[in-house]
Amino acid sequence: MVKNFKDKLYEIIFEADTRAGKAFDVVLLVVILMSVVLVLLESVPAIRKNHGDTLILLEWIITVIFTFEYIVRILVVKKPWKYIFSFYGIIDFLAVIPSYLGLIIISYQSLMVIRVLRLLRVFRILKLTRYTAAGRTLAKAIWNSREKINVFIFFVIILVIIVGTLMYLVEGEASGFNSIPVSIYWAIVTLTTVGYGDISPITPLGQFLASLVMIMGYAIIAVPTGIVTAEMMRPSTQSNTQVCSICLHDKHDDDALYCKKCGEKLHPEKKSTE
Amino acid sequence: MVKNFKDKLYEIIFEADTRAGKAFDVVLLVVILMSVVLVLLESVPAIRKNHGDTLILLEWIITVIFTFEYIVRILVVKKPWKYIFSFYGIIDFLAVIPSYLGLIIISYQSLMVIRVLRLLRVFRILKLTRYTAAGRTLAKAIWNSREKINVFIFFVIILVIIVGTLMYLVEGEASGFNSIPVSIYWAIVTLTTVGYGDISPITPLGQFLASLVMIMGYAIIAVPTGIVTAEMMRPSTQSNTQVCSICLHDKHDDDALYCKKCGEKLHPEKKSTE
Amino acid sequence: MVKNFKDKLYEIIFEADTRAGKAFDVVLLVVILMSVVLVLLESVPAIRKNHGDTLILLEWIITVIFTFEYIVRILVVKKPWKYIFSFYGIIDFLAVIPSYLGLIIISYQSLMVIRVLRLLRVFRILKLTRYTAAGRTLAKAIWNSREKINVFIFFVIILVIIVGTLMYLVEGEASGFNSIPVSIYWAIVTLTTVGYGDISPITPLGQFLASLVMIMGYAIIAVPTGIVTAEMMRPSTQSNTQVCSICLHDKHDDDALYCKKCGEKLHPEKKSTE
Amino acid sequence: MVKNFKDKLYEIIFEADTRAGKAFDVVLLVVILMSVVLVLLESVPAIRKNHGDTLILLEWIITVIFTFEYIVRILVVKKPWKYIFSFYGIIDFLAVIPSYLGLIIISYQSLMVIRVLRLLRVFRILKLTRYTAAGRTLAKAIWNSREKINVFIFFVIILVIIVGTLMYLVEGEASGFNSIPVSIYWAIVTLTTVGYGDISPITPLGQFLASLVMIMGYAIIAVPTGIVTAEMMRPSTQSNTQVCSICLHDKHDDDALYCKKCGEKLHPEKKSTE
Repeated sequence: MVKNFKDKLYEIIFEADTRAGKAFDVVLLVVILMSVVLVLLESVPAIRKNHGDTLILLEWIITVIFTFEYIVRILVVKKPWKYIFSFYGIIDFLAVIPSYLGLIIISYQSLMVIRVLRLLRVFRILKLTRYTAAGRTLAKAIWNSREKINVFIFFVIILVIIVGTLMYLVEGEASGFNSIPVSIYWAIVTLTTVGYGDISPITPLGQFLASLVMIMGYAIIAVPTGIVTAEMMRPSTQSNTQVCSICLHDKHDDDALYCKKCGEKLHPEKKSTE
Repeated sequence: MVKNFKDKLYEIIFEADTRAGKAFDVVLLVVILMSVVLVLLESVPAIRKNHGDTLILLEWIITVIFTFEYIVRILVVKKPWKYIFSFYGIIDFLAVIPSYLGLIIISYQSLMVIRVLRLLRVFRILKLTRYTAAGRTLAKAIWNSREKINVFIFFVIILVIIVGTLMYLVEGEASGFNSIPVSIYWAIVTLTTVGYGDISPITPLGQFLASLVMIMGYAIIAVPTGIVTAEMMRPSTQSNTQVCSICLHDKHDDDALYCKKCGEKLHPEKKSTE
Repeated sequence: MVKNFKDKLYEIIFEADTRAGKAFDVVLLVVILMSVVLVLLESVPAIRKNHGDTLILLEWIITVIFTFEYIVRILVVKKPWKYIFSFYGIIDFLAVIPSYLGLIIISYQSLMVIRVLRLLRVFRILKLTRYTAAGRTLAKAIWNSREKINVFIFFVIILVIIVGTLMYLVEGEASGFNSIPVSIYWAIVTLTTVGYGDISPITPLGQFLASLVMIMGYAIIAVPTGIVTAEMMRPSTQSNTQVCSICLHDKHDDDALYCKKCGEKLHPEKKSTE
Repeated sequence: MVKNFKDKLYEIIFEADTRAGKAFDVVLLVVILMSVVLVLLESVPAIRKNHGDTLILLEWIITVIFTFEYIVRILVVKKPWKYIFSFYGIIDFLAVIPSYLGLIIISYQSLMVIRVLRLLRVFRILKLTRYTAAGRTLAKAIWNSREKINVFIFFVIILVIIVGTLMYLVEGEASGFNSIPVSIYWAIVTLTTVGYGDISPITPLGQFLASLVMIMGYAIIAVPTGIVTAEMMRPSTQSNTQVCSICLHDKHDDDALYCKKCGEKLHPEKKSTE
């Protein structure tokens, strides 16, 4: 019966298809959101000054809740180590540990460090992704196009180094192009069309070069878009490898049972759940 | 015959397929545009100073016209309450109420408040959307991709909080990264490639991190584009209206000859040339 | 024989499929480019000061060449008035007239005006488009999607007015949001991700609102892209209405002579040259 | 046997499908990356001051390695001249020559020049592209859409010249629009949504014009995206290698059963699952 209770707890904490499980997830979601808001508020000087004690109290309450939750998770799961070293296990751990670290390494001088450690708890928010299943489609499309995107980013990096070097030579140190790394930073700011304006060319040749980079960036932005769009429209057609045994037509939808060309019955492959 | 007149008015005011109805809509459109321009002009200090009285007069004329129109709309419509609480009913109400509110809560000190209330009349412009039917296709495509866009925006928000926190730790308060909320604001400004430059990293590590964010933003922008584009190209395949006469399956490709569910021969419709 | 000479000239000046016609076009192209460069150089204070006389001389030479060309065009064309009031006829006229106007309305004070009139000759560059035929495909795709793009821009304008008004109310005049029109200008700068930074929010609420606008702009940019992309991929498949008389397959390429499904001969429609 | 050794070396240096060849490429990659990092570090004033001698030493080591590699490449390749004048042959040469040039043209005053020459070695990074084969798909898609992109860029240039001239006339020299070239620079900065903010309109008319340009730029960015996306989704149909045995037509759709040109039955290839 204890085992039964453990299973029940597992269902509530790890799954979301029962009523209690859903309620638990919603409550946890709210607490996580609150904890993130706390970290944000704590970093605002004025708020820290006036409501510092309240924030610290609330933070410890949340830390205790998360610690309790983390321990229960380890207790109810069948393979604790698998959970502990899973993506969410690590995040759950990172979400509670900074508060305790802040407790141990405490001294007048290291107060700043504590604040830093506390900020790491922003990782708690990553827990939120656990609740979205719809993101898988997107993730898959991006994952499928990772190679092309990598090549693209690689190309952008090369381009940006060359452009940065040229601008460093052309503009000199008068207009903020103090070193090639800084010029590369400028090139990235420009090519990605962010354009802070903290560094901007002032010589005619520099402005001409910058214009070329901008128009290039304008055309280049089409590439990742093209990659992802093409990928997003492909999955449904490519993932099916059925071939009609009669007419050899091979572009069947995933839900097709009969060949749409000759009417022959298809033999749908057993899909292995990924 | 009074009922006949009411029907006639309804046709003129609510519909646009008769000559009078069209004329009414065009006139209303012009008045709405004028009222919006009035609000804009009134906010310009120099204009308010020199032509304040004229603007107030014109505004009251428009308010009277809109009030009269609003009352007539309620009178001629068959289910008044349905109109009043419909999207446009609420907007029509919001378009007239600020002027009257400004009349009641008047005093020397609250003059500023009146101006604020007046500005709310900018909602009048929303009436303009009533006249565009072509927007439905667009709205549908966006509506269909709402889930993916939500997940995308959710992902962007998480990314932006983490990036903002990291930049707050890296840059410190010297370069304007005063708090995590402000750093998150900067991260959004950067990731969306807006790049005001009011806050920009000055440390090498900060600039390196910022560069990563920008390149990320450059690749990420492909995602919503891919979503919407894929959605926009789908309708044409969904509009196929073939229904299998045996199994009633209705999602056939345009070039399908046999039902892909039961193998029954389909009867492709003769396509009318558009 | 005079008529023959006129025809020859017409062929050379208006067409580009003979050797002489091509040579004429290339020379004209070079002269147009030079004239544009002249206008650009003339506007640079330092260059105008040192080389003003040379520039004026060169400009008059080009003006004479263009005038002569314009007159010859009128003489050789069969329907002169049709040419004169055609798109290029008007541009050819606008390309020469400012120089002569500058000659008549001359005085010490109006020297500035002359410069302004001269600058209008930048329209000469529009002649360049005459030489690109490949642009038609692009133009067609954009033209076909004009309705959706209009609705989109209309929606953006409404959004921008509302956002501008809200920001004017939230930020006030301290941070540069002096009037609603200026705030709308800011909203456009932000939504289009241009982000000059000449006006940027400084209050927390203003920065929060601005963040929303940016993320919105990030998602919204997907819409025109989706429209144009969908349009660009449609033409080739939709413009063909051939249906195989045997198997009724209706997705034939434009250059298909036989049905790709059953091998039956198709009856390609006579295409009317657009 | 010497020839055998030469072949072996060729395999190692020019190819990457043997174990030794792969190891060589990886080592070379690391050295190239190091050399690029060296150039970047050398340009940072603080680093050059403190670690100048170390950097120069390291640079000469890399130069010697690259020179040796370049000579070996020439020796082992079958057609040395073809390599020397190939894309990578030229880059390999440009990667070593600046160091030696810096050695010859040395004097107190030309120290700056030496640094400039050294910076040219950033071209070494182009060697990196040799190792990516996946980029071909992308390059092909971009190459296929080069015509449309050229027309697009041509159109953008015309637009930018006209807009720049108009803004120069509207804004005048007070707000930084000193000459038409500078105004064109501003127009490019704005249309590409970079938006530095170093130059930005201050007159109402100028801000209105700028708003139009921005919204235009927002819609225009859809064009290159549409071009590239459409191109990226095409390859799958073009990669079909069926050739009709009768009329040799080779552009069949993947699902074609009969040649669309002559009606001959095609012999669809068995697709190997990737």
